[in-house]
Amino acid sequence: MSDETIIYTPIGIISTPYQRIEDMPIQPSGASKVRGKLVLNPEFTAGIADLDGFSHVYLIYHFHQVHDYEMIVTPFLDKKPHGVFATRAPKRPNPIGLSIVKLISIKENVLILDNVDMLDGTPILDIKPYVPAFDQQKDVRVGWLTGRDDDAKTKRSDERFA
Amino acid sequence: MSDETIIYTPIGIISTPYQRIEDMPIQPSGASKVRGKLVLNPEFTAGIADLDGFSHVYLIYHFHQVHDYEMIVTPFLDKKPHGVFATRAPKRPNPIGLSIVKLISIKENVLILDNVDMLDGTPILDIKPYVPAFDQQKDVRVGWLTGRDDDAKTKRSDERFA
Repeated sequence: MSDETIIYTPIGIISTPYQRIEDMPIQPSGASKVRGKLVLNPEFTAGIADLDGFSHVYLIYHFHQVHDYEMIVTPFLDKKPHGVFATRAPKRPNPIGLSIVKLISIKENVLILDNVDMLDGTPILDIKPYVPAFDQQKDVRVGWLTGRDDDAKTKRSDERFA
Repeated sequence: MSDETIIYTPIGIISTPYQRIEDMPIQPSGASKVRGKLVLNPEFTAGIADLDGFSHVYLIYHFHQVHDYEMIVTPFLDKKPHGVFATRAPKRPNPIGLSIVKLISIKENVLILDNVDMLDGTPILDIKPYVPAFDQQKDVRVGWLTGRDDDAKTKRSDERFA
């Protein structure tokens, strides 16, 4: 059952200023005002009707430059290794990225977005509206990230996940 | 480029109380204290090291009972139709689900989770820690969901996305 394969097809491609996996922001919080352009496959244009009422959206995407994975990684925000599922590192068994970006404008099949933290040319798999009533949790503990999570605003990537 | 196919393999399967697509919670906020058991493929057990420090995790999963999609849907929380990407409805071009659940305990390759809102037997693609510094946005607008988002605590699914 868990060996079945699942096949997805990108709904579009995002253009960003990041051509190389080094020296990138490691989270949208480190990509403030960095602009990207998501061009949807035109067959999906009808699917973004009414999205313009939302200020923020989730992008679910494929880390297309990642070709292997490790179970234990040393993430950018720590010097100690952790299990890959306890990190946001891109080298994952299924290299799926998740970022919350700001929706600036929509014109036909083109979305202009701020706070983008993915590589140029990244294939986008899904867009979902960000809804605080669903998505903001209380009484949160963040394990090894305690006291380090704010460093994501300034910390940049290096070559380790290339 | 956007026609390339992307292949994923589930990292595990979640057991939940929901056997049928009707009469389910439509968001984790409507599944308070509903317990699920995620059994990871044992080859990935090392990847959850240190996850137990986090109180909440994202599950990214495949809506395995969804076999088609529509560009315009009438979601459970409204009587009017909207573009599918402006909703969380499961019938999406890539039927990828995203839920934030509470991590109760971990023992070897088994995670006990609360607030699960997915079908029994759902294949899980990824687990990521939920980190407020990355994931909580300010000055959010929620479009057509304004004033309706809180209804997700009580509203249940029907057969429309079966």
